[in-house]
Amino acid sequence: MNTKQKAQPLLIVGSVAFDSVETPQGRADMALGGSASYASIAASYFAKPQVVGVVGEDFGTHHMARLSDHGVDVRGIESMPGKTFHWRGRYHEDLNNRDTLETALNVFQHFKPAIPDAYRDTRYVMLGNIDPVLQLSVLDQTRGVTLTGMDTMNFWIDTARDALLEVLKRVDVLFINDEEAMQLADEWTVLASAEAIRRMGPKYVVVKRGEYGSVLFGPDLTLFVPAVLLSHVVDPTGAGDTFAGGFMGQLSRGGGLTRENLAGALAWGTVMASFTVEAFSVDGICNLQHSVIDSRRRQLLDMVRY
Amino acid sequence: MNTKQKAQPLLIVGSVAFDSVETPQGRADMALGGSASYASIAASYFAKPQVVGVVGEDFGTHHMARLSDHGVDVRGIESMPGKTFHWRGRYHEDLNNRDTLETALNVFQHFKPAIPDAYRDTRYVMLGNIDPVLQLSVLDQTRGVTLTGMDTMNFWIDTARDALLEVLKRVDVLFINDEEAMQLADEWTVLASAEAIRRMGPKYVVVKRGEYGSVLFGPDLTLFVPAVLLSHVVDPTGAGDTFAGGFMGQLSRGGGLTRENLAGALAWGTVMASFTVEAFSVDGICNLQHSVIDSRRRQLLDMVRY
Repeated sequence: MNTKQKAQPLLIVGSVAFDSVETPQGRADMALGGSASYASIAASYFAKPQVVGVVGEDFGTHHMARLSDHGVDVRGIESMPGKTFHWRGRYHEDLNNRDTLETALNVFQHFKPAIPDAYRDTRYVMLGNIDPVLQLSVLDQTRGVTLTGMDTMNFWIDTARDALLEVLKRVDVLFINDEEAMQLADEWTVLASAEAIRRMGPKYVVVKRGEYGSVLFGPDLTLFVPAVLLSHVVDPTGAGDTFAGGFMGQLSRGGGLTRENLAGALAWGTVMASFTVEAFSVDGICNLQHSVIDSRRRQLLDMVRY
Repeated sequence: MNTKQKAQPLLIVGSVAFDSVETPQGRADMALGGSASYASIAASYFAKPQVVGVVGEDFGTHHMARLSDHGVDVRGIESMPGKTFHWRGRYHEDLNNRDTLETALNVFQHFKPAIPDAYRDTRYVMLGNIDPVLQLSVLDQTRGVTLTGMDTMNFWIDTARDALLEVLKRVDVLFINDEEAMQLADEWTVLASAEAIRRMGPKYVVVKRGEYGSVLFGPDLTLFVPAVLLSHVVDPTGAGDTFAGGFMGQLSRGGGLTRENLAGALAWGTVMASFTVEAFSVDGICNLQHSVIDSRRRQLLDMVRY
């Protein structure tokens, strides 16, 4: 967040959705959600996010304004006849498990990411958690990408493994949680899984371990950043997307894939995710002061300074 | 492990047992186990452990030799008529869960720790995971203790809460896993739990998070050390006891409760535990070269050097 560095474009492709969430701390109805919303707002503190997604006719201008007020370029968000993707879920008391009560894909079912000409030369790309076939089509539409990150989930590992393996060959960073890493690699430890996944293509594998932190595995490099310890968690939805947005946003500022820069990306991703889970929807990451974010980052890193 | 520092006595009270364990990687029958065995062998690399425990007539001299060959003072291990404590368990494939198939307390049922005169002035004390009433009786028999650590488990939180709260008032460091911390404090986050537990007495709470690492909470101090990432885990039994032994062993070398020394204790505990889980019984921590331990410690700390 050095203001001397000019923010660079970061292309983010993913869902823009409405979430209705119940947690032990309360509920939110039809609130702004989706991987691209979380990732782009998180990235907006470091980069100039460009979002490609789809919404329905029910997606009000105030929701769109929430993104654009944060400097998010929303020209790539297509509006289609029909309703916006809606997810409804309920978290268990410990917040580690949740039940999906409803998934209405709506217009998202027909999502075919069309990258606007203005975005095709963007050098940093984040592929949110969508069908790997669509992730491939995004890569086919870009030119001269410097760094590509991607997210995925157990659903695609189960149902679209071949396409997923194709995407993996073409990305630099995979974001994945520990259980999914073991599922993808068919291994029983995070280390063995990450090594196996790196052989599938990505130079870097970032294994997210939720409230425990995250580990980055790279060539001759393993970095660990703990999670921010919070005494009050409201809603974990979007934590992973926020993490990826902060991580890619930091790297898009340049400086290369040095140990220092990668550790910085892990830390910024972690810090942004900690703000997300303290409130419903994107409320926790909107309109944050840079000094507040930086103070939490210093608090985080202080835990491992010895 | 600076050889210029003279190893100091560390009193360890806990179980000395036989474990019969099945894991996906194999099995061990009637192998040396128990909290005091793991803790004392781990501590032997840093301190002069003195064990108080009880065994039965079936405890062969070769088992005792395994401890004493490591410099463990076994004069406090009482031999009683009857059989040695025997635990039998089976781990699930992911090694995070286990089923207890048999718990034969045998002579341990009548264990009344009698601290030999020669140990009563020992300044560093580790109370293994035993009945809190017995932990209190140990404290009553000691004189001029500098630092006391204790371990406990869900069973004592459920069945002996009042006595446990008494011990907590009198110890400096509590070792506890994350689920048990939340159970003891009746809180839903590790941070809130640790703060609540510190108000119960211990100046320091070390929350163990298994394969994710551990966090130390102290006055104006929070330190995090990740776990060693292993590609092959054989048997998790004794990891927590080993951790506590390494931690207390390091602190018994002096240097006070500085940030640096506490972080060092966390790291040594973590490293010793990583050796324990790579083999059955105490096999992983016996006869280790100091250079091998130190190399793993450097590898661990390298993950958080950025």
